[in-house]
Amino acid sequence: MILTVTLNTALDLTYRVPSLRPHSSHRITEVIERPGGKGLNVARVLAALGHPVTVTGFAGGGTGRALRTALAGLDEAGPLTDALVPVAGATRRTIAVVDAATGDTTQLNEPGPLVSPAEWNTFLERYDALLPTAAAVALCGSLPPGVPVGAYARLVRAARAASVPVLLDTSGEPLRRGVAARPDMVKPNADELAELTGSHEPAQAVRETRRRGAHAVVASLGPEGLLAVTPEGRWRAAPPARVSGNPTGAGDSAVAGLLSGLVSGEPWPVRLARAVALSAATVRAPVAGEFDAGVYAEYLELAEVTPEGPAD
Amino acid sequence: MILTVTLNTALDLTYRVPSLRPHSSHRITEVIERPGGKGLNVARVLAALGHPVTVTGFAGGGTGRALRTALAGLDEAGPLTDALVPVAGATRRTIAVVDAATGDTTQLNEPGPLVSPAEWNTFLERYDALLPTAAAVALCGSLPPGVPVGAYARLVRAARAASVPVLLDTSGEPLRRGVAARPDMVKPNADELAELTGSHEPAQAVRETRRRGAHAVVASLGPEGLLAVTPEGRWRAAPPARVSGNPTGAGDSAVAGLLSGLVSGEPWPVRLARAVALSAATVRAPVAGEFDAGVYAEYLELAEVTPEGPAD
Repeated sequence: MILTVTLNTALDLTYRVPSLRPHSSHRITEVIERPGGKGLNVARVLAALGHPVTVTGFAGGGTGRALRTALAGLDEAGPLTDALVPVAGATRRTIAVVDAATGDTTQLNEPGPLVSPAEWNTFLERYDALLPTAAAVALCGSLPPGVPVGAYARLVRAARAASVPVLLDTSGEPLRRGVAARPDMVKPNADELAELTGSHEPAQAVRETRRRGAHAVVASLGPEGLLAVTPEGRWRAAPPARVSGNPTGAGDSAVAGLLSGLVSGEPWPVRLARAVALSAATVRAPVAGEFDAGVYAEYLELAEVTPEGPAD
Repeated sequence: MILTVTLNTALDLTYRVPSLRPHSSHRITEVIERPGGKGLNVARVLAALGHPVTVTGFAGGGTGRALRTALAGLDEAGPLTDALVPVAGATRRTIAVVDAATGDTTQLNEPGPLVSPAEWNTFLERYDALLPTAAAVALCGSLPPGVPVGAYARLVRAARAASVPVLLDTSGEPLRRGVAARPDMVKPNADELAELTGSHEPAQAVRETRRRGAHAVVASLGPEGLLAVTPEGRWRAAPPARVSGNPTGAGDSAVAGLLSGLVSGEPWPVRLARAVALSAATVRAPVAGEFDAGVYAEYLELAEVTPEGPAD
């Protein structure tokens, strides 16, 4: 199975309103409620592709209960196992308010629950117990309060000690420390790369990220697609045409594509094609974070993966 | 006990953000979660004043569970009994986004759950069984989808048949039909009065509301206070000075004051003083919908209740 870690899970709510006007009252015309947090998004896509996947991290309170109930429903659609660790605090909500008039989204994110040292230790035991049966592990998203800032470095080291390929997708100081622990892959976007390295030039920032410890870097550069620099070579990967729609979850779908290709033993160009096609299929789906299976199949054929010579 | 009916209960969330900017992302700095819906607000104030109170209406889903857990916590602070009827659908959330920079509030209200005919019948059985032990009943707020628009008329008639004084606080067509069933009291605000009668002149609109069936009308006119026209006489009631703060829940506190005075056998001027003082104490409280006990005690002495001659 593939293991995904979401320390700061979320109950994602999408509210559609006719038009968002600050300081007035709005009747919401449509409410969509889904389990969220980057690692859960990755897991949902992997399960839909048929990969057995286990999710861990934290969940608590009434929102955590709602999240786990929804995950149990997802399991009927794909092979997804819930190995989340209970916490006393409540799982956060995130609210995306979609203005039906303009299509623009206003995001409201609750803070995560405070995780106690005992809860963190319980999670570490659970993680270390799951690792030996994992074909790959993805560490995704922000850290809730109380989790040590070096958390991902600890989790990367454990995965490498167990010889399980590990992908890290986070930002800020947790990313900086995680990269130093030498993960197999990181998938930063342009902002995260710039914050990590101080460079706004992607090729240079990717080089610096590898120098700091990441074996492979797959940078997601928005509509320009992916830049991958790996021990096996360098590639650019992009959809055949600019894709319009809702980019929410597109990065998580790219992570799912990379892991799907990895555990299937595919070479980098196939992994990158899956990542680009899933990403585009997510942007094109009517519901944020879902992916359109027809678009995925079509773009898997059409994705343009171009070698850029050997790694530095 | 006093019975309050909240057919469209809500889990009320208050989010504080540094500054609300549409189409951008916000980190919420403070989350407050409370049981809501007008009848529950009324009940919370009555319980805090020491009146035994029973709440009924509908609750369902994870949000309904969170609401009932919070109500059980309130019971420790005052004599509040939960007689809510379970529904398959989920209790709605309401979200008040408070802009810390300006103090302004942006309100997002989910639609209520769809109530089935069987659930409505179960509620009616519960209501009819509770009526004989009630000293007074308050029917508060909007109707969720599926509940017949004549619902309040049905509930008013049952209360009158059981000789239980009944107060109605709603709007639109449910108010229009409820008034025709001859409730003992209605507590419309200026907008609700105007919508019901077509008149923007409060004295005239109140007269018309009584002609349509309400025995007593207590109109809440914002900072101008209350205008009461009853079979026992007419009064104006207002705080001694303009009160500034958050008006959320002030109308519900006024209803609690009227009921508190009624079940204590107080004459109208005392009931109105309680309503005005609780309303002002709610506006002045730091948390929306709470009331400041010190301000209540002070304003109970200072409230100005002025006779305006006999009822028409």
